[in-house]
Amino acid sequence: MADRKGPNAKLTGVIQMAAPALTRKELLDRLRIEFPDAGHAVGDYEIEELWRGGCRLRQRYDQRALRPGGTLSGATMMALGDFTMYLAVLSVIGWVPLAVTTNLTINFLRKPPPGDLIAEARLLKLGKQLAVGEVAIHSGGAEDMVAHMTSTYSIPPVK
Amino acid sequence: MADRKGPNAKLTGVIQMAAPALTRKELLDRLRIEFPDAGHAVGDYEIEELWRGGCRLRQRYDQRALRPGGTLSGATMMALGDFTMYLAVLSVIGWVPLAVTTNLTINFLRKPPPGDLIAEARLLKLGKQLAVGEVAIHSGGAEDMVAHMTSTYSIPPVK
Amino acid sequence: MADRKGPNAKLTGVIQMAAPALTRKELLDRLRIEFPDAGHAVGDYEIEELWRGGCRLRQRYDQRALRPGGTLSGATMMALGDFTMYLAVLSVIGWVPLAVTTNLTINFLRKPPPGDLIAEARLLKLGKQLAVGEVAIHSGGAEDMVAHMTSTYSIPPVK
Amino acid sequence: MADRKGPNAKLTGVIQMAAPALTRKELLDRLRIEFPDAGHAVGDYEIEELWRGGCRLRQRYDQRALRPGGTLSGATMMALGDFTMYLAVLSVIGWVPLAVTTNLTINFLRKPPPGDLIAEARLLKLGKQLAVGEVAIHSGGAEDMVAHMTSTYSIPPVK
Repeated sequence: MADRKGPNAKLTGVIQMAAPALTRKELLDRLRIEFPDAGHAVGDYEIEELWRGGCRLRQRYDQRALRPGGTLSGATMMALGDFTMYLAVLSVIGWVPLAVTTNLTINFLRKPPPGDLIAEARLLKLGKQLAVGEVAIHSGGAEDMVAHMTSTYSIPPVK
Repeated sequence: MADRKGPNAKLTGVIQMAAPALTRKELLDRLRIEFPDAGHAVGDYEIEELWRGGCRLRQRYDQRALRPGGTLSGATMMALGDFTMYLAVLSVIGWVPLAVTTNLTINFLRKPPPGDLIAEARLLKLGKQLAVGEVAIHSGGAEDMVAHMTSTYSIPPVK
Repeated sequence: MADRKGPNAKLTGVIQMAAPALTRKELLDRLRIEFPDAGHAVGDYEIEELWRGGCRLRQRYDQRALRPGGTLSGATMMALGDFTMYLAVLSVIGWVPLAVTTNLTINFLRKPPPGDLIAEARLLKLGKQLAVGEVAIHSGGAEDMVAHMTSTYSIPPVK
Repeated sequence: MADRKGPNAKLTGVIQMAAPALTRKELLDRLRIEFPDAGHAVGDYEIEELWRGGCRLRQRYDQRALRPGGTLSGATMMALGDFTMYLAVLSVIGWVPLAVTTNLTINFLRKPPPGDLIAEARLLKLGKQLAVGEVAIHSGGAEDMVAHMTSTYSIPPVK
């Protein structure tokens, strides 16, 4: 993490697809150990892609996420977006499980029909203490964004 | 709902404890019918109090909500806050299940320890199309707020 | 505006550069008439580009925007971002001056040095009643984003 | 500032009216020195009250703040709210001019008529690095809130 400051300047630019600080497999192994009771962490989500400064997750459809009107609940999208952003942060700082969300804003744009959800996060800034990013959530197979999220993560100091 | 415009002006003021548009029991009955698969709606949450323009919910502790560091997940607090605001909106406009969140911002203030969460919502504005409110989330038994949320609900037009 | 519904589905996609509902010159003429006292509307801002669903504005440096530490004030960036989003909305719905912001979230990412600011807005959704968009603000000549904003505009009903 | 941690726990509670870390006069003197070009800091705003953890400001009506429809601009309310929160932070940590906003969300609830605006801020959390608070903005003489804001300030480390 000695180079944490270095790559920040380019995070929002063209080299987003650089190798992440830990591989997809390393991340999954860690998550299984640290979140043993949290089904969402390794059960419901599929990490489709992980790169330095971002990632894309797919959430498989589960009818318990439905609410009146036959649309997926906001809580489902918020949980997905928050977790996607968490992995985007870890993709740069490595395994720092105690990073926590300090602030999150989500705009719900369209009602997602029953089906998979796909969330893609990218960091807008990575400082020593705070990481800020945005997440676009789409309904699987459709072009329009169903929700847009921005959030801030607080990064605990390196001991 | 003919009087929807009337009481708005006072929502943020002193008469918050007026009778809600539907009773706590009516609300629970409706939720059980409309959200049959959504455990959260009637399973995990307890409506402690409901009044015109606000309500207070308690979420029983469930260890699946834990994340690394022994704190309750942000997703748990967001789902709770969103649902509390939903009931606050219904407390004034009556049973309109298709009201949907359009926007939500949450600030996570302190890490809640394992235990119950208590959320209290109050409306700041109720217009014809939009309702805006804030939710304070506390950890059961502690004085400090653990999260603060504001959100906007879109109210479908009366047919 | 009869076709307001039509183009929405594509707003976030590839045809962002379609012709706006009113030209840059028409917009400036209208602003001069309707905002006679508001210097910002036509004085401080330069509309660099306007297309259907978005626009890019430049704000000339003014030392009154400086605050301690030699950085541009947050208020300056918020006013710029809000106005940029306003023009992005008008670029699709035409001249509807009474469109008002209902909600705005801004993340300040880096302290902008004294100099011009450039804001670029794009709509994420345009419904009948609400428009949601995001604005990226850069410091003139630098690559990194200095602030990211999302906001919602309420569109008054067509009489 | 050695006691910064101490009083935090009570900030959201009943002892909000404790003496601020610097008096109203000390604050004004400092602002006049540090913001010489920024009229808003000492010209347009009147500090009505300042206490530990909060303050109330009045902004005198200025017709340049009007926008189409005869309402005060959102930019005016955002600048006022942000500055009110800034003073609320300083009321606890003392004169630390380099504290900067990292995040701000505002909900515009009602269109304020031409006239004074009154903003009241209170801190919800004061940590070592981040302060979070909320601001209620009212139109002078009216009961209803016209805007509600939450924001986060980053506090530079004590050298």
